[in-house]
Amino acid sequence: MKLIIAIVQDEDSKKLNETFTKNGVRSTRLASTGGFMRAGNSTFIVGTENNKVDTVIDIIEEVCKTRVQSIMAPPTYDFNFEMNLNYPVDVEVGGATVFVLDIEQFKKI
Amino acid sequence: MKLIIAIVQDEDSKKLNETFTKNGVRSTRLASTGGFMRAGNSTFIVGTENNKVDTVIDIIEEVCKTRVQSIMAPPTYDFNFEMNLNYPVDVEVGGATVFVLDIEQFKKI
Amino acid sequence: MKLIIAIVQDEDSKKLNETFTKNGVRSTRLASTGGFMRAGNSTFIVGTENNKVDTVIDIIEEVCKTRVQSIMAPPTYDFNFEMNLNYPVDVEVGGATVFVLDIEQFKKI
Ligand code: NI
Ligand code: NI
Ligand code: NI
Repeated sequence: MKLIIAIVQDEDSKKLNETFTKNGVRSTRLASTGGFMRAGNSTFIVGTENNKVDTVIDIIEEVCKTRVQSIMAPPTYDFNFEMNLNYPVDVEVGGATVFVLDIEQFKKI
Repeated sequence: MKLIIAIVQDEDSKKLNETFTKNGVRSTRLASTGGFMRAGNSTFIVGTENNKVDTVIDIIEEVCKTRVQSIMAPPTYDFNFEMNLNYPVDVEVGGATVFVLDIEQFKKI
Repeated sequence: MKLIIAIVQDEDSKKLNETFTKNGVRSTRLASTGGFMRAGNSTFIVGTENNKVDTVIDIIEEVCKTRVQSIMAPPTYDFNFEMNLNYPVDVEVGGATVFVLDIEQFKKI
């Protein structure tokens, strides 16, 4: 068996959890912060048969892949104190860091 | 040395921590949620000598084994608005998922 | 690649995080409690190239090494209700437990 550790952004963690469940992948989510990813991330651990590692990684990839999102920038004021209308800005969201480790022994109690 | 990762139900985590301490097993508890277990679980990590892995798993088994517990169901009301007395219901509690991984290097600083 | 798991005291975790960042070490911090260390600790996980394991451990050692700190003991009152001035007391702080595990597969998504 293999242990998969996936560090994902908070905004993807709910959907990842749901997609795991829908596909029969049992995962545990640890509260985590910073470092690999921008502020606010979750760490998932998944124990899985060797032949399902690729399937689990495919799910993570599909849900968490880096993509560009348009958000509205907050309105700004110029030196004449006139408001500039807010406008859409493209930001990159998502991404994940995945480690696969070997499990020597697995026990369900 | 081996790293033992154990995901247990919240209701067993206090007793597991105490039993580890009583038996000289040093553990760290990570906040975790969902997935392997019903809502509300804790993830323990324990670093241990190879020859003590079975002892640690025995402790987890003893404290966290799945067992049936009688709880009182809340009182219900029938269509005539007469209260039915509450009665005991058997529910399954406990259970744990345990992974053992090899530690290549261990250092106490 | 190797996965480094480091359990450190809460009071060292902010500086450790900053020192990791300054040295280009990407880490994730998990909320954790008790066990290996006195109450209040953090668990860091770091994925790193094999040839940088020693560098990461050196950083942990430098930031978290056990050291003696002088703190002011709180004022006490004797039986005549006269206050005794508070005085410095030496306490041991810091320390870390570090595990290094082998990563079979690493993927950045
Ligand atoms: Ni295996
Ligand atoms: Ni070993
Ligand atoms: Ni490797």
